[in-house]
Amino acid sequence: MSSVDPVIAAAERARAASHGLALATREQKDRALVAMAEALETDSDTILAANAEDIARAEAAGTPSNLIDRLRLTPERLAGMAQGLRDVAGLPDPVGEVVRGSTLANGLELRQVRVPFGVVGMIYEARPNVTADAAGICLKSGNAVLLRGSSSARSSNAAIVDALRGAVTDVGLEADVVQLVPGDSHDSVKVLMRARGLVDVLIPRGGASLIRSVVEESTVPVIETGVGNCHVYVDRAADLDKALAIVLNAKTHRSSVCNAAESLLVHADVAEEFLSQVVPALQGAGVTVHGDERFAAYDDVVPATDDDYAKEYLSLDISARVVPSLDEAIQHIRRFSSQHSDAIVTEDLSAARQFTAAVDSAAVLVNASTRFTDGGEFGFGAEIGISTQKLHARGPMGLTEMTSTKFVVTGDGHIR
Amino acid sequence: MSSVDPVIAAAERARAASHGLALATREQKDRALVAMAEALETDSDTILAANAEDIARAEAAGTPSNLIDRLRLTPERLAGMAQGLRDVAGLPDPVGEVVRGSTLANGLELRQVRVPFGVVGMIYEARPNVTADAAGICLKSGNAVLLRGSSSARSSNAAIVDALRGAVTDVGLEADVVQLVPGDSHDSVKVLMRARGLVDVLIPRGGASLIRSVVEESTVPVIETGVGNCHVYVDRAADLDKALAIVLNAKTHRSSVCNAAESLLVHADVAEEFLSQVVPALQGAGVTVHGDERFAAYDDVVPATDDDYAKEYLSLDISARVVPSLDEAIQHIRRFSSQHSDAIVTEDLSAARQFTAAVDSAAVLVNASTRFTDGGEFGFGAEIGISTQKLHARGPMGLTEMTSTKFVVTGDGHIR
Repeated sequence: MSSVDPVIAAAERARAASHGLALATREQKDRALVAMAEALETDSDTILAANAEDIARAEAAGTPSNLIDRLRLTPERLAGMAQGLRDVAGLPDPVGEVVRGSTLANGLELRQVRVPFGVVGMIYEARPNVTADAAGICLKSGNAVLLRGSSSARSSNAAIVDALRGAVTDVGLEADVVQLVPGDSHDSVKVLMRARGLVDVLIPRGGASLIRSVVEESTVPVIETGVGNCHVYVDRAADLDKALAIVLNAKTHRSSVCNAAESLLVHADVAEEFLSQVVPALQGAGVTVHGDERFAAYDDVVPATDDDYAKEYLSLDISARVVPSLDEAIQHIRRFSSQHSDAIVTEDLSAARQFTAAVDSAAVLVNASTRFTDGGEFGFGAEIGISTQKLHARGPMGLTEMTSTKFVVTGDGHIR
Repeated sequence: MSSVDPVIAAAERARAASHGLALATREQKDRALVAMAEALETDSDTILAANAEDIARAEAAGTPSNLIDRLRLTPERLAGMAQGLRDVAGLPDPVGEVVRGSTLANGLELRQVRVPFGVVGMIYEARPNVTADAAGICLKSGNAVLLRGSSSARSSNAAIVDALRGAVTDVGLEADVVQLVPGDSHDSVKVLMRARGLVDVLIPRGGASLIRSVVEESTVPVIETGVGNCHVYVDRAADLDKALAIVLNAKTHRSSVCNAAESLLVHADVAEEFLSQVVPALQGAGVTVHGDERFAAYDDVVPATDDDYAKEYLSLDISARVVPSLDEAIQHIRRFSSQHSDAIVTEDLSAARQFTAAVDSAAVLVNASTRFTDGGEFGFGAEIGISTQKLHARGPMGLTEMTSTKFVVTGDGHIR
């Protein structure tokens, strides 16, 4: 079961350990999660010291302060990670759920039952809290996990994983259900992406280029997450007060995340009135508006190009355009949307029905901010990412989405 | 929307046509399916003449007679294809099904709704009936389809698709929801496999090497189908009469298909009695037994190697081994199974529970032949293939498995 390549060896250990974890009861898994939370607290000094090493290295390398902030752990952030693990312990176990079942005409009993994937590979950037979150969600869903964080967080991640592995062992599960991918180079990621048969699913979380490279190079099945060029379309029949509040919230509540709005479309019939409200409001909130000629009639609006309409700014910028019809709004969204979250503001039921039917995004919202596309907001309790692909899972992924199924067929000597 | 590459151009036409198909009502789609069935009947002379060209070309090339038989269409086979389309018309429409839904604490109404993938690419071998089957299943599930059959069937496939496209147009849907992939060379398949963003899902159906090459090379998400190294394990607590019937059925009922048994494991405690029955019975049915030393004590048993245990024969061959325990049987299956269908024969509830929990295959069967893993047998009404991967769909795939979902979120000015 060993191999020259250390990544393959780790994947083989994960696969071997996954068999026991797949059979673990909810009680065992919840005890492990609570022990993991306690270990983060017990080992907090060690983890914070490791994090200080990462911070010092990042500062020496001249890393921008916003990235250093994402890297930084504090006692409060550690407590949040521990609480996250306890929250996952409180969620129902997806494994064993009977998805459907029937007795066939010939008497065979058919059940489709949720089972873990087996081994999950997580490739992610920056924040070390993802290390604990992903380990918790994978463990609860019965999956062994191979964690590949960014090299900038390597000391923090190593300390966190050490603590988690100790806790897992303490409750009688195998430590190798939680592992860091050995090696810091891109080569180790490459090996992971080609470990088809050993790794069941890869989930990349991070910037667009990371995700694209995993999608391009992986032979292991991938769940694509998170790029969001999200639209808010203000219909001719919109309540403009609601529209203004939704646009501001979707753009400015937290501009660096994937469910923030990046583009505003306004129906021509309400453009004169609404633009006179929304442009100053956005600018007053610090937003740069990149608009078409109608928007560009306002001071400080930057002329927009197709590149702007295609862009996920992740900053206090928004592209904006007046459209002659609902149909044109749908065409624009089809052309430019990343199919993450797109919203319409309207009081017209027919327009809402047309928009929700024709816009094919993970979440289509009516009179609500795009910021609601979130596992926590949707009541899933835990979220490992937001899928923007159509295969397997689409939208926020909770514990259920971290499972596969199998058919169990019981007979009494049945033959065809 | 046009492009130099004809495959990309076809995919762009498919994507454009998919928007209308996604919004088609069940009534429209069922009328299209009935019209497609009628067109196969009306155009039967043309289709059979085209098929005769394929047969003549294959015979001139010295193609083996069993492959020529798979290629051949007859009036009866055409009638079967037409009936298949009418059967699909009779099945419920998966599109629009509300998978789950709730009203959140803040009053937002959340619904997860089934939607088509969009554009599906099918890459398949030999039998031209797959052309009509796949077109029907894709159309009913609201997906535009790009069909890439084998070049040996190109005249038949072109004639079938001509008939289907005419029928689709007659009922007011766009012809481009059903297209052949232009070009006969492997290059056209390569373009299809890299058309991420235009093609949502690729489904390869055929031999192991076809499937492997698609999995390796595609950046479009793939649903892997069909390789089956299936096991029957005869437990110490088996009813040996049932075991004998199941082994014979699983191996000989139709040995060329993926759910046929390829390997027999027998518990040591019943080996003496069972081997004296099963070896002559298999050999009497024309099966070559590749066995371990216990089996090799019988005349004409060929000594088995690990290569035999790993092999999907798809022929009247079976590998066979005596195991000292249920646990060893599970270990053997973990090592060699392709995770398609694996069966235990036992009257012991505890053994059945242990086997169904520990064996991680698309279908795990108790006292039933592996041949039951089939969309028709499971009551799905139509089957596009049997998935052996864990992402998205596992086991027989019917109409439901040909869809994705989206979240529709309705509020009244909700912001975070």
